[in-house]
Amino acid sequence: IMYSPSLRRLIQAFVQLPGIGEKTAERLTFHLLLQRDKARELADSLLQVVEKIRHCRQCYNFAEEELCAICSNPKRDKALLCVVEEPKDVFALEQTGCYQGLYHVLLGRFVPMEKKGDKELTTEKLVQRVKEGQFQEVILATSPTLEGDGTALYLAELLHPFGVKITRIGRGVPWGVHLSYANKTSLADALSSRTPWNRKESSS
Amino acid sequence: IMYSPSLRRLIQAFVQLPGIGEKTAERLTFHLLLQRDKARELADSLLQVVEKIRHCRQCYNFAEEELCAICSNPKRDKALLCVVEEPKDVFALEQTGCYQGLYHVLLGRFVPMEKKGDKELTTEKLVQRVKEGQFQEVILATSPTLEGDGTALYLAELLHPFGVKITRIGRGVPWGVHLSYANKTSLADALSSRTPWNRKESSS
Repeated sequence: IMYSPSLRRLIQAFVQLPGIGEKTAERLTFHLLLQRDKARELADSLLQVVEKIRHCRQCYNFAEEELCAICSNPKRDKALLCVVEEPKDVFALEQTGCYQGLYHVLLGRFVPMEKKGDKELTTEKLVQRVKEGQFQEVILATSPTLEGDGTALYLAELLHPFGVKITRIGRGVPWGVHLSYANKTSLADALSSRTPWNRKESSS
Repeated sequence: IMYSPSLRRLIQAFVQLPGIGEKTAERLTFHLLLQRDKARELADSLLQVVEKIRHCRQCYNFAEEELCAICSNPKRDKALLCVVEEPKDVFALEQTGCYQGLYHVLLGRFVPMEKKGDKELTTEKLVQRVKEGQFQEVILATSPTLEGDGTALYLAELLHPFGVKITRIGRGVPWGVHLSYANKTSLADALSSRTPWNRKESSS
């Protein structure tokens, strides 16, 4: 006996999500069976999102219109382009409130070992934007990982011919982490990218 | 700017679920945006479950028909009734494979402090079943918690007039837990409910 077909199906649908195991899926299912309004609301939100959210025609960020809220915002600085791997990286950077330029979302990264390359990414559009735009600087904000660094290296070569200034996000020890807990590479990065002490900045 | 309305709505729907915080909700949302088949499947499963699953007319377990798979199974022992708080307790007990009787789901427990009482539970139907059925034993399998014990006490009084044998599930130190990690009450229970050593059982 055990679970009926429709319960089994819902549990399986939850198990497909990242970080949700069999036990959590069962717990969520039983919770939603006793609170059916929540189940309906979740189902509706999912269908709405699937229907409404697409990729921005220009930067490939998530958007509800043809252009995303950032690309269509006239106040953004059109001389700055920040290249990231995923839409969620855009949200992460926006949360800092420190960046006013535009973005370009690659929708992935180079994974040479899996033969995942150029073709699946939005590099063609990136090259076109850099060629046609008035960008003064392209910030390569792929993750500081093996694959992210590889992708940045590849993009730097690709964009070099256009004479635009190319930068890579800073790296070092993350804020809030005790030095003894930082990994070797972060510490090496922190040493090699050390900056002169600025009395004014540190007292602010 | 930040999240568009439909993204915000989906994140909020996830946050309503137990054990899912803002960060996890965002991660799930972004995952589903990149794998839309999964989002559609989850939405469909939710709607199917909401539509199909109801409470068994007899025992209040979840069912896809009028009677649940246990109540409609002629092989179950109709002389045994096990009373539990929630449908998920039925699934937990079924997983042991040790019980062949019927169930009765209270759909809650007594919480005197919150003035949650008799009215919201399925006790009326329980009394009716005990009165009309040929039960030889009613096992009170509410949780070994303050509220579960209180509920068991109330039910024992309620069912006493019908002369049926009433038992409470065994309690003690759970299997797999080192003695020093068991809580005081479990240890006290384990001592007071100790059983004679049975040479045959222990060697099997």
